[in-house]
Amino acid sequence: MALASVDLGGTNIAAAIGTADGEILAERQIPTDSHLGPHAVLDRIAALLNEMAPEGVEALGLGVPGLVNLNEGKTLFLPNLPTQWRNIAVASLLEASLGCPVYLLNDARMAALGELDFGHGRSVSDFVFFTLGTGIGGGIVLDGRLRMGALGSAGELGHQTVVADGPLCGCGSRGCLELFASAPALIAEAVRLIRMGQAPHLLELAGGDLNQVSPILMTQANDSGVAAAIERAAHYLGIGVANVVTTLHPEMVVIGGGLAQMGERLLAPLREEVTRRVKMFPIDNLKIEASLTGPRAGTLGGLALARRRGMI
Amino acid sequence: MALASVDLGGTNIAAAIGTADGEILAERQIPTDSHLGPHAVLDRIAALLNEMAPEGVEALGLGVPGLVNLNEGKTLFLPNLPTQWRNIAVASLLEASLGCPVYLLNDARMAALGELDFGHGRSVSDFVFFTLGTGIGGGIVLDGRLRMGALGSAGELGHQTVVADGPLCGCGSRGCLELFASAPALIAEAVRLIRMGQAPHLLELAGGDLNQVSPILMTQANDSGVAAAIERAAHYLGIGVANVVTTLHPEMVVIGGGLAQMGERLLAPLREEVTRRVKMFPIDNLKIEASLTGPRAGTLGGLALARRRGMI
Repeated sequence: MALASVDLGGTNIAAAIGTADGEILAERQIPTDSHLGPHAVLDRIAALLNEMAPEGVEALGLGVPGLVNLNEGKTLFLPNLPTQWRNIAVASLLEASLGCPVYLLNDARMAALGELDFGHGRSVSDFVFFTLGTGIGGGIVLDGRLRMGALGSAGELGHQTVVADGPLCGCGSRGCLELFASAPALIAEAVRLIRMGQAPHLLELAGGDLNQVSPILMTQANDSGVAAAIERAAHYLGIGVANVVTTLHPEMVVIGGGLAQMGERLLAPLREEVTRRVKMFPIDNLKIEASLTGPRAGTLGGLALARRRGMI
Repeated sequence: MALASVDLGGTNIAAAIGTADGEILAERQIPTDSHLGPHAVLDRIAALLNEMAPEGVEALGLGVPGLVNLNEGKTLFLPNLPTQWRNIAVASLLEASLGCPVYLLNDARMAALGELDFGHGRSVSDFVFFTLGTGIGGGIVLDGRLRMGALGSAGELGHQTVVADGPLCGCGSRGCLELFASAPALIAEAVRLIRMGQAPHLLELAGGDLNQVSPILMTQANDSGVAAAIERAAHYLGIGVANVVTTLHPEMVVIGGGLAQMGERLLAPLREEVTRRVKMFPIDNLKIEASLTGPRAGTLGGLALARRRGMI
């Protein structure tokens, strides 16, 4: 029998049916419509999975955007979902409607678990995973195991301070990495350049529509200001990466999430910044590479979590 | 038979004879006189230990200020010692003259090992150790084990960037924590205040002698500028601590080294800063405490290393 993976986001729900080997058999995406409340949304997830796998699944791995109680399968605090999502026994509610065990995990840790079981983790046992998208999350793998910390929250790498007295972050702290190297941060800088008339090529590539501006599109523009914006993001990302390398000296740093598709335009200046910052020990052997699971890290992580029956 | 512990510093050599239970039987300190070259200095260490324990010792744990090859017992790069200290087979040279096995470890990791075996590590299995002195070093303990990283260099916590475009650090990077929260950083700020006439009480406490200014003395002065300097150091230390907590979410952060003697004057504002910075998960249960091994962390770490026969 197959396994199921669901990534519950603030905007969309991404569901997949797959095997214990990480083969994806079917994928679907539906809007979260979180305003309907947790019970209605969980019913929609169950209906979707029943439709995708009418014969049922062995287990479901569910990624949740925030803090979860892993042992009790409950949500604690989900910053991007309405407050009625607090303290919901998501696992047992879904278990009742699906008839299979359900395992919860923070979505960034779930993506890291996908990379561990089906990506670089197959050849490297100590790595740090950054997932760069709307936010920046992460996961720490040491000795082949995902480090959870006391609450499954180890690896919140986007909320390291990189600018001591920087702007206020959504999390409540200041100057977090997420403010400087996430997709919204890059897009905001691109929009500023466009509005100042300094990114005519990017504007042309976007068909004159600011809604079309994305980090990937930015890599295709030949405006010098846009290139500088990418390098600035890589500079701050490099500080965050260097701090973790200085702390843990892993074998590899894996860059995942949507921004990993920027490829060498992001990775090359990132490697240079890390080399400038980590001076206490030689890092000739440190690899900084794009994720092997790419945009499927979360989906594969859900299959990994289901396959592992929640044993991380 | 007893164990020996030696902490080889750029200025002094601290030697001790003790037991596997961490009881210190004898302690001695002599100048390093590193200009004499490694062979002469190693001969002096052997002579000192033979004098302190004429009947010999079972094993020696030796802390070295820099990068070492743990398996081969060789020094690699010691920034505070002359360059002829590179690539010296310290362990085998000392083994020949002492007639017992010798185990090398970076000095900050050795202090962390002391705290692990004889300090907070007896009750806590996940902690981050900061040693604050002339420099800032550290060690990471997860699941009761000291994390070494690829080269025994994990835990270089003083070389996290806390000011993105800050001043040049001795390590070659910029804006490292060590530049803002070490003893020299605090003393420099105190001297500036004294020279500007803004720290009359501290100058009085120092007997008018700048050589007597120390972080501990600073905690006794009632000059408002001196209080602000301590809080500023705690602010930057808090950023470095918060970054590691956000990354690993340990049970405890242990503050060791000479500056730990500043007590609550440093720890209280440090805790406040960490609370301001770590917002992604609740840290009500996180403890931030002074080391239990205090100034003896390194000495006890050497005994731990000898007792463990180098197995970390």
